[in-house]
Amino acid sequence: MRTGPGPVRETLAALPLVDHHCHGVTTDDLDRTAFESLLTEGEVRPGGDLSAFDTPVGAAVRRHCAPLLDLERHAPAEEYLARRSALGAHEVNRRFLAAAGTGVFCVDTGFAPPRTTSPADLARLAQLPAGPTVVAHEVVRLEVVAEAVAARGVEPEEYADAFRAAALDAVRRPGVVAVKSVAAYRTGFDLDPARPTDTEVTRAAHAWLSHGGRLEHPVLVRQLLWTAVELGLPLQLHAGFGDSDLRLHRADPALLTDWLRLTSGTVPVMLLHCWPYQRQASYLSAVFEQVYLDVGLALHHVGPARARAVLAEALEITPFRKLLYSSDAYGVAEFYGLGALAFRRGLGDLLQDLVDADELGLPDALRLARWAGADNARRIYRLTGGH
Amino acid sequence: MRTGPGPVRETLAALPLVDHHCHGVTTDDLDRTAFESLLTEGEVRPGGDLSAFDTPVGAAVRRHCAPLLDLERHAPAEEYLARRSALGAHEVNRRFLAAAGTGVFCVDTGFAPPRTTSPADLARLAQLPAGPTVVAHEVVRLEVVAEAVAARGVEPEEYADAFRAAALDAVRRPGVVAVKSVAAYRTGFDLDPARPTDTEVTRAAHAWLSHGGRLEHPVLVRQLLWTAVELGLPLQLHAGFGDSDLRLHRADPALLTDWLRLTSGTVPVMLLHCWPYQRQASYLSAVFEQVYLDVGLALHHVGPARARAVLAEALEITPFRKLLYSSDAYGVAEFYGLGALAFRRGLGDLLQDLVDADELGLPDALRLARWAGADNARRIYRLTGGH
Amino acid sequence: MRTGPGPVRETLAALPLVDHHCHGVTTDDLDRTAFESLLTEGEVRPGGDLSAFDTPVGAAVRRHCAPLLDLERHAPAEEYLARRSALGAHEVNRRFLAAAGTGVFCVDTGFAPPRTTSPADLARLAQLPAGPTVVAHEVVRLEVVAEAVAARGVEPEEYADAFRAAALDAVRRPGVVAVKSVAAYRTGFDLDPARPTDTEVTRAAHAWLSHGGRLEHPVLVRQLLWTAVELGLPLQLHAGFGDSDLRLHRADPALLTDWLRLTSGTVPVMLLHCWPYQRQASYLSAVFEQVYLDVGLALHHVGPARARAVLAEALEITPFRKLLYSSDAYGVAEFYGLGALAFRRGLGDLLQDLVDADELGLPDALRLARWAGADNARRIYRLTGGH
Repeated sequence: MRTGPGPVRETLAALPLVDHHCHGVTTDDLDRTAFESLLTEGEVRPGGDLSAFDTPVGAAVRRHCAPLLDLERHAPAEEYLARRSALGAHEVNRRFLAAAGTGVFCVDTGFAPPRTTSPADLARLAQLPAGPTVVAHEVVRLEVVAEAVAARGVEPEEYADAFRAAALDAVRRPGVVAVKSVAAYRTGFDLDPARPTDTEVTRAAHAWLSHGGRLEHPVLVRQLLWTAVELGLPLQLHAGFGDSDLRLHRADPALLTDWLRLTSGTVPVMLLHCWPYQRQASYLSAVFEQVYLDVGLALHHVGPARARAVLAEALEITPFRKLLYSSDAYGVAEFYGLGALAFRRGLGDLLQDLVDADELGLPDALRLARWAGADNARRIYRLTGGH
Repeated sequence: MRTGPGPVRETLAALPLVDHHCHGVTTDDLDRTAFESLLTEGEVRPGGDLSAFDTPVGAAVRRHCAPLLDLERHAPAEEYLARRSALGAHEVNRRFLAAAGTGVFCVDTGFAPPRTTSPADLARLAQLPAGPTVVAHEVVRLEVVAEAVAARGVEPEEYADAFRAAALDAVRRPGVVAVKSVAAYRTGFDLDPARPTDTEVTRAAHAWLSHGGRLEHPVLVRQLLWTAVELGLPLQLHAGFGDSDLRLHRADPALLTDWLRLTSGTVPVMLLHCWPYQRQASYLSAVFEQVYLDVGLALHHVGPARARAVLAEALEITPFRKLLYSSDAYGVAEFYGLGALAFRRGLGDLLQDLVDADELGLPDALRLARWAGADNARRIYRLTGGH
Repeated sequence: MRTGPGPVRETLAALPLVDHHCHGVTTDDLDRTAFESLLTEGEVRPGGDLSAFDTPVGAAVRRHCAPLLDLERHAPAEEYLARRSALGAHEVNRRFLAAAGTGVFCVDTGFAPPRTTSPADLARLAQLPAGPTVVAHEVVRLEVVAEAVAARGVEPEEYADAFRAAALDAVRRPGVVAVKSVAAYRTGFDLDPARPTDTEVTRAAHAWLSHGGRLEHPVLVRQLLWTAVELGLPLQLHAGFGDSDLRLHRADPALLTDWLRLTSGTVPVMLLHCWPYQRQASYLSAVFEQVYLDVGLALHHVGPARARAVLAEALEITPFRKLLYSSDAYGVAEFYGLGALAFRRGLGDLLQDLVDADELGLPDALRLARWAGADNARRIYRLTGGH
């Protein structure tokens, strides 16, 4: 997975990345349906005639991932799947994780079906025999904590304290560096920004606990976000692009403005993905000191050839301390490699061209590349270790 | 109307297109005011000092259409109009329709002032003497059907059945391949997604039928969309860009998410135009199996020189089976030719560059070009005939 | 501050601009905190470790402004600030204002802390010894007029008339060419478009006058917009990008559609800034005769290297009579120069490439350049004088 010439491109190509938001990879051998299901954010109907390979990300896999499985570029889907099966999940995972060149992973452990790697397993897969140490940290998904509290059984009037205590326990585990919320999925960001009162929370908890299911009561989602602020760790927020469970327009991060104003001066807020609202996220990162962003997930879905255009919009007015790298890879190992490649190439091409046009000084471009690829995340999450 | 070199560009330049959404062309000779009124989605005030030629689409007409009228490129507006008058409407229409190179038209017949071509007339205009057969199918605009039912007189409690029966009659006519709704204009997409109850429909019909006018009661617009689902044909939905009768932000197709979720597994939903929400449409096409999109209308309004940028966003995460071509041409024959040119050139440049950069295999690029230009539409509308 | 070769670029480089919306420049010598606070739309915390130089606009200042202070391109921030201090505010202001090459300024005087230039002072700073006359006109910010009326003391039932009278007085002052509203900041554009009744206004005035503070009562903001229509002058409306006091999504100008429809045929409406909703603004300018737009503020914040991409979207379907230039410069003199450079270069590159590709005729490109850079503003504001 190579990129073009020029010192900025070369620096980015060699830079050990901090992937500040990803998930585990499956250890299963995958048949066509299983692989295609992981390749797309949409549904795959077995027996349907739409192939998830016939997409920008599918074409990118055939172009950039096939050579890592010893195949020709643009190998047909059938060949790709056959070779993948022949090598076996472990070898495939090892190759792509190694190719990613990631030094530190921050792993959201809140969505992990059986036979998904733990953070430690993920780091092991990425570890080269004689290479520098690869490290994996953990990100606690707060909806999972809240739903576990509900599943254990709790009185409505005790729910708020029980959730807070459980969240505190969760973040005190070794290796936890951040919390995450999928409020964008559950209610969207167009919610009342104010901290709910105890009475409101108790009433909402009563409604939720008597019916069960996912945490999606607007009052409890707000309470979750306000509890996140108390935990003191950086808060990762899904924004924009995701699967069909989302209402995209309600995941526009600009809708969070009032809440960001109320929580200014507290915890860093990390806007994840953001596409197609990367300009809105750029704005928020420019005017709110605590806001950061990435365009993870989008980068491999649009593919390395288009990543530059998305990054150019994401950086339009973004302070250089505010852009981070994430793959948001989940399930298939290809995405760790493809996400890293798309980021390195997209940002490398963008910055190198600015340097070549004398619009940006080379030392500034190299600094921005290192900040976005690794140092911004190290600084915000206070990471130690990794390379 | 030529495009650059390279096999993808050449394939697209020669491909007989399926224009899955257009209107009829006027058979009138047009004076300056009439021509300019059709050139713009805005208003033209006779005697005003803004010329509809002083726009991106006006410049594109002078650049790309003038030579087909035997004029120099960039001919002044006055010369263009004079030459157009000298040739007469029939000859002008014949030239541009032939130049479009469209093999199949799907014609929305729901907006057709006097002296507008029927689908059959449109096909005849596009037919070359010794060329392969050009075919035109029909798209039924459901609001027109509903308003005809109201105009004939119907009791409120019988409205739902009468509309359903009339719609069924309309779609059973030979040559009908799809239905269309302009719900985006009437209420916008931010409507209650649930199917309205009979009681709700009767009450709403009572309100509407007693006052008359356009169908824009939110309950009846919802009922129209749900009736469309029962008809079983692909449903074309205006989305995004249109004239000043629109509230653009309420035509963002992401607002349809809940309705798409409820109607999943039923009829194909064809999002028309979409600009400037092409990324939102791209997302919907990626996560909902039944969603397709085009960027018709926008392509000739932004012009061939900018079509590539719009298509690049429209294709960002769009499955290759999901993009279609439409001109959305209406009134002036120029738009059939210009829409086709903008699509061929925009997509050709985009894909050829990907092939040249070895980001996409040539066979894949050619397949995607044929799918988007013709085969996706043939497949969804089960078209036969044409070339 | 130079641009590339080609007649369009050269014409734009030499064109005396009409900056139809800017503010005054500070006459203070600025220390690092003060300078950085003016460099960003966000907050700068003294002692914080985020530098406003580490942004696209900061990099653009170091690249394009440093040479005007006799420094190397990309000079470090410390050097830049030291040199700025050594030269003194007056000399710095003079250099950048002269470099802007602006012939006419329209100055919003409604936001002017102490030691900010008046319009006349601004024109004097931009005046070259033997150069043609530089002129500055005034734009009256209506919220300031309304708040002054409230501060003077007025009965609720007299508020509407008192505001109207004060606004009429203000616009009758010599040199006033337009009014402006920051309704986007106060309520957003998602407001009831109808003119409020006298009773509604009185009730709202009662609520506001008894509590004081900024004018942000939705009824009074509407009344302000409707009063603006009566004044007969072009109405400038902040749209899109601004500081953290904004809710960006509520400053989408598409939200104004119903109000634009109701006020069609009255005063010109000038949409300022617009980013990231430049396509929405482009749509409005294409379908409403009275709507105009610029992408001021955004141009220097994204920097000259990215201005072209933003302008390309802003011009996607915009009639050539509808695009204007503004710097929206405020506080630091750099922004007058940088805004002008970004506009000249962004538009010059865009149009020159269209000419080079024979997509636009050279005379048309030159005309569009002159219209956008100066003539459209001269025409709408009926400007006389300047060069």
